[in-house]
Amino acid sequence: MRASRRGSVDPFIVMDVLEAARAAEAAGRHIIHMEIGQPSTPAPAGARRALAEAMEVDALGYSVALGLPALRARIARLYRDWYGVDLDPARVIVTSGSSAAFLLAFTALFDAGERVALGEPGYPSYRQILKALSLVPAGIPTRAEDRYQPRPEDIPADVAGLIVASPANPSGTMLSRAALGGLIAAAEARGVAFVSDEIYHGLHYEGRAVSALEISDEVYVINSFSKYFSMTGWRVGWMVVPPDHVRLVERLAQNMFICAPHASQVAALAALDCGAELEGHRAVYAENRRLMLEGLPRAGITRIAPPDGAFYIYADVSDLTGDSRALAAEILDKAGVAVTPGLDFDPVRGARTLRFSYARSTADIREGLARLHEFMRRRG
Amino acid sequence: MRASRRGSVDPFIVMDVLEAARAAEAAGRHIIHMEIGQPSTPAPAGARRALAEAMEVDALGYSVALGLPALRARIARLYRDWYGVDLDPARVIVTSGSSAAFLLAFTALFDAGERVALGEPGYPSYRQILKALSLVPAGIPTRAEDRYQPRPEDIPADVAGLIVASPANPSGTMLSRAALGGLIAAAEARGVAFVSDEIYHGLHYEGRAVSALEISDEVYVINSFSKYFSMTGWRVGWMVVPPDHVRLVERLAQNMFICAPHASQVAALAALDCGAELEGHRAVYAENRRLMLEGLPRAGITRIAPPDGAFYIYADVSDLTGDSRALAAEILDKAGVAVTPGLDFDPVRGARTLRFSYARSTADIREGLARLHEFMRRRG
Repeated sequence: MRASRRGSVDPFIVMDVLEAARAAEAAGRHIIHMEIGQPSTPAPAGARRALAEAMEVDALGYSVALGLPALRARIARLYRDWYGVDLDPARVIVTSGSSAAFLLAFTALFDAGERVALGEPGYPSYRQILKALSLVPAGIPTRAEDRYQPRPEDIPADVAGLIVASPANPSGTMLSRAALGGLIAAAEARGVAFVSDEIYHGLHYEGRAVSALEISDEVYVINSFSKYFSMTGWRVGWMVVPPDHVRLVERLAQNMFICAPHASQVAALAALDCGAELEGHRAVYAENRRLMLEGLPRAGITRIAPPDGAFYIYADVSDLTGDSRALAAEILDKAGVAVTPGLDFDPVRGARTLRFSYARSTADIREGLARLHEFMRRRG
Repeated sequence: MRASRRGSVDPFIVMDVLEAARAAEAAGRHIIHMEIGQPSTPAPAGARRALAEAMEVDALGYSVALGLPALRARIARLYRDWYGVDLDPARVIVTSGSSAAFLLAFTALFDAGERVALGEPGYPSYRQILKALSLVPAGIPTRAEDRYQPRPEDIPADVAGLIVASPANPSGTMLSRAALGGLIAAAEARGVAFVSDEIYHGLHYEGRAVSALEISDEVYVINSFSKYFSMTGWRVGWMVVPPDHVRLVERLAQNMFICAPHASQVAALAALDCGAELEGHRAVYAENRRLMLEGLPRAGITRIAPPDGAFYIYADVSDLTGDSRALAAEILDKAGVAVTPGLDFDPVRGARTLRFSYARSTADIREGLARLHEFMRRRG
């Protein structure tokens, strides 16, 4: 049968790692997972309890397209609590994970053939979703000295939009208020739509991340319950849009998604009041990060991006390899540690980088670091 | 902020009905809902129980992009049980409702600017999703004598795809095996991709619906747990694609959706073994349909499409009005019954049609028919 051109997006290189790790485990080996970008913890207990109760009394049919009103209002309150921002709940759009938010944002903002800028390294699906929607990703090679984030003058002249993430994946780096403000101002001045991916907000270890909504209302902000709220598989996130874009996005959401999963919305609403459990997860990540920052350099992996947030360490391993895919395979084979080659995040320079995730248990992190240390010692 | 052209899709006209019905209820009136296209029943008890149990023992993180292997295998078995078709589970792709399946199918099959044919009347979101993806809907006006389904010779010369639904929304009509086969053969002969929307399968009252998979493997078949399985708000559906399209759709799904909601997948797997409860729902719809087929003509609504399946009656009310929106408003106001004007389904001829849903309780259907009868009597 016929197939489209836009549908032939790139495969994830990390899938080879995942498959190799799965095969090793099936063969009886014990693998430490530093490749996976999700918490090992379930949704908060309060979220699961709320859903168990709702399933007994509510048919959980379609919600309205923009999401349960109580959830939209509670998300708006999060902006007051986290950032001191007074946000109208009418601007909050509940989505089927940040994935759906990107589909909605790109569809609402850009027409086929338009170019959209994004920093490299970056979340690989930005690029593939843009391509699937007949848009053209315009990669901006970022610099280590800029925390792998774009500068205002890096924005290409011919783009219709700019996607920025802080904390970023894979680097874990954050933009300062001044740096984020500079990018937003440059985009606004040129009529470039600004999309701020804030899905790692809440996961910071020194200063907190700045939301684009603290700086401007003329932005699309995308967030999710997947990371800080430990609800990846539930596929529930949200987007905040300028007031005059709400109706536009509502009509698209009605047609493209009908609504986000109702059960997940119920769980997400309760998760917003599970602060103690979630801060406990963050304390685990903080300890894991401390161990990584101590253990990776000791193992000889020294050139790492400033690990401001999220649960990633992005390392320049050009002193070790020019083929990060081969190095990742070697680490899996010899050390029993799964890590992600940088190629998914940066198609060119990623051949000399690795991403380490510290989202799993502290015991796993300790064991993984010991294995990496021994591997590097033997490798010499 | 800038907005795209493709994002400005049409509003749903039924939303005005829903809002008017909500306002009437808020003002203390009792409204019978014949406008809503979803069961009032929750997910089957076994499905809810399975999820409640899974939440205690499983983190429910991301599933693989194509869905839980057990669910894919169990869906494949459904094709044996329902149609006698031997289906490789590798061809089954679990999606975030049929909505995600349409987004995946259209992206995998069509490039920006291509034209895709669909029968009118039809599900309005086909048209809007196509537009959002920079595709061009090519409406085929169908005829009452063809059960409001397209003929092979109706397929426009210049289209890249054809979407067919049986049972259809809003008409509830089904294609015979010969009629479906004729459309598939005509599409194949001309290299036109065939997309078969089968989300109302299981909801039939005389002969069962024929799946496109009984006729050809070179089709995209889309189905859902929303209707027969009574799980609208869970956002879980599936798609069956030709063997050589699986990898293509997998890559798109990884990037566009990551996975369908894990909790919903767990519930859906259990729902497939809740036959007794689901057949009980079907018995209710069968009785509702019997009452509708008796009561509507008695009220003076006589020109209705053959109600083969789903839970809709599509009525030509051109003897009553040339403005179905005004008639629906009048019925809501005077009779307290919410019905859907045909304009969402057929932008032109829908001014002379109404859709009645019989998905709610039999008591509601009886009361709604009594009100319609009295309304029509007074209207004279």
